[in-house]
Amino acid sequence: MFEKPLGMRDTLPELYEKKHRVRTAMADTMFLWGYQFIETPALEYYETVGAASAIVDQQLFKLLDKEGHTLVLRPDMTTPIARVAASKLLDEDLPVRLAYSANVFRAQQREGGRPAEFEQIGIECLNEESISCDGEVIALLISTLKQAGLAEFQVSIGHAGFAQELFVQILGTNCRANELRKFLYEKNYVGYREHVNSLHLSSIDKQRLQQFLQLRGGEEVIGKALDIIENDKGKQAIIELKELRDVVKDYGVEEFVKFDFTIVSHMSYYSGILFEAYAGNVGFPIGNGGRYSLIEKFGKKASATGFAVRIDMLLEALGDFQLDNKTHCIFFSQERRKEAFRLADEMHEQGKKVVLQDITGVKNLDAFTKRFAETTYLIGGHVDE
Amino acid sequence: MFEKPLGMRDTLPELYEKKHRVRTAMADTMFLWGYQFIETPALEYYETVGAASAIVDQQLFKLLDKEGHTLVLRPDMTTPIARVAASKLLDEDLPVRLAYSANVFRAQQREGGRPAEFEQIGIECLNEESISCDGEVIALLISTLKQAGLAEFQVSIGHAGFAQELFVQILGTNCRANELRKFLYEKNYVGYREHVNSLHLSSIDKQRLQQFLQLRGGEEVIGKALDIIENDKGKQAIIELKELRDVVKDYGVEEFVKFDFTIVSHMSYYSGILFEAYAGNVGFPIGNGGRYSLIEKFGKKASATGFAVRIDMLLEALGDFQLDNKTHCIFFSQERRKEAFRLADEMHEQGKKVVLQDITGVKNLDAFTKRFAETTYLIGGHVDE
Repeated sequence: MFEKPLGMRDTLPELYEKKHRVRTAMADTMFLWGYQFIETPALEYYETVGAASAIVDQQLFKLLDKEGHTLVLRPDMTTPIARVAASKLLDEDLPVRLAYSANVFRAQQREGGRPAEFEQIGIECLNEESISCDGEVIALLISTLKQAGLAEFQVSIGHAGFAQELFVQILGTNCRANELRKFLYEKNYVGYREHVNSLHLSSIDKQRLQQFLQLRGGEEVIGKALDIIENDKGKQAIIELKELRDVVKDYGVEEFVKFDFTIVSHMSYYSGILFEAYAGNVGFPIGNGGRYSLIEKFGKKASATGFAVRIDMLLEALGDFQLDNKTHCIFFSQERRKEAFRLADEMHEQGKKVVLQDITGVKNLDAFTKRFAETTYLIGGHVDE
Repeated sequence: MFEKPLGMRDTLPELYEKKHRVRTAMADTMFLWGYQFIETPALEYYETVGAASAIVDQQLFKLLDKEGHTLVLRPDMTTPIARVAASKLLDEDLPVRLAYSANVFRAQQREGGRPAEFEQIGIECLNEESISCDGEVIALLISTLKQAGLAEFQVSIGHAGFAQELFVQILGTNCRANELRKFLYEKNYVGYREHVNSLHLSSIDKQRLQQFLQLRGGEEVIGKALDIIENDKGKQAIIELKELRDVVKDYGVEEFVKFDFTIVSHMSYYSGILFEAYAGNVGFPIGNGGRYSLIEKFGKKASATGFAVRIDMLLEALGDFQLDNKTHCIFFSQERRKEAFRLADEMHEQGKKVVLQDITGVKNLDAFTKRFAETTYLIGGHVDE
């Protein structure tokens, strides 16, 4: 009778308020940076948004509408925003800064504790190709996480082009490159090493692929990366990361930044700089983003860069924090009802949280009283406080 | 390529911000009155929440999960809240005050301009049977609408028991009473009159049923209602409305209140006082609510009272209002990037909305500049402002 579908959850008051505080702090920051919030529908056509999104088919919640079209519950926000932008917001060929805070839906195969509906808050900067803009997105990610109350975290920055170029350069085909990339996506470095060793390659090439795994750390890894790449596209990735490093320093947020060339994404539409945010105690990225070329799928040529933060992961990273939740309760009887209402009115105007409670409406007064930090009794003909 | 499913809509920045302002003003008020926000999943089992809700089957969005169970997109919030409350929040048999702000889903038969997904913000006060609590809910509805910026509106209060008792008293059977009630639900008063005239009834009874339609207006209609009802349950409804009138006066909100005995609901679970909020220019109620006995369907005996406001209807009632949306844009070139970032930082700290824009990232500077109230140029080696 009380059952919920697999992966579906209720958010009770304490967690709700924590989510609300974190979301509000982040959204206020995005707003001040000039990002404009939009909302898209929960249901989209499978043929448009469902097919364009990079979420695998078995994770999509599908249903049929009355005309027999397949609908999906949005599995991400980047794809619906690409749809809206391409249809309505990019006509003037100008930079567009958008933000969202929304639940997305991904069906789970079996109960593994993973939510099938979770909240993402994020931004997209569209039609702006400068590295400054990638830097802005990373600086804004860092600023929102700080505003949310997170003190220790790290943004690891890589480039979608580098690994792919290096792998194709050494392995010869996209197919073999993708095979190797898969280990990176799964963060299976042991598997990667074994796979490299099993390949028919010169010892120099094997060494380069093994060295590649070390390209994680401070800005010095950018120089090291230059040593193992030969082709121009790969070198271009390094030039972009160097420029980004300078932008990040000018923002004064370099203490939160690492470089990691082994970051790859399962989102196939990433085309440039990409990054993941980690906080020490959480096993998954709390946020991620990068530059992508998804809008083309909706018929407009426009590059974009953005990030999304998972509120549930961020809350896990924040750990237990206290809410100042003092509530006052005014108990009243009929005789002094008007007086009680006036008092509550005054206290509400002062921003105090006050419950009004008819004393006859509570069966167990002792238990109920315990829920409040303070109580006032306006009962009968005299003052009981 | 840009199509959306029937009744699904995008919310672009200006409308989003208006919705956000209205929602925040209302939610803050609910919070101060001690209502605790909760969130429930978008998907529920058809067998539990879908079946318990009062929304007709053809308005439900249904899908199958991997085990073959039917799921529904929540068509309302009252039913999921009844589920959560019955399973987790009513163990101590104490009053529970809950709030929500969520989208609900109702499939539309064809495009008639009606949204299939729309936002409701509302509250439920559970396990509290006093009339004070019904009054609190109405006073809070009025307070939230005022906080949202609505100046002129009216809350019409009726009672689910009165019409039903009067009709059964005169017509003899529930079935015939329901037939007549249907005209009221459709607000088809002409149809009601014709139906009454076509019935085989004494002229006195016909007169009483016609008089019933006049029971709309100030508090004087409560006295008039007493003249035409004979049975005890019907009289009990009048006693409750009289007490409610006194509570509403003590809240000092009587100027917003009318009484209307002809209000009935298609929600079959309403059991006592019920009400609808109207603003002059909007054809549909912007909000409605009342006392209901839905929680029993989830195995707990607990009465509840609450209201829901439709944000889209409320925005329609508010009409066009201006947003103070001044945004400043700082254009920078690489040489003065750091200076630009520092300036933006300072302005953000002062709560100013500031976009940072690399001058090389904009193709059409003139058009882009027009989007901002103020601009600063930090370009080259000198100041261009």
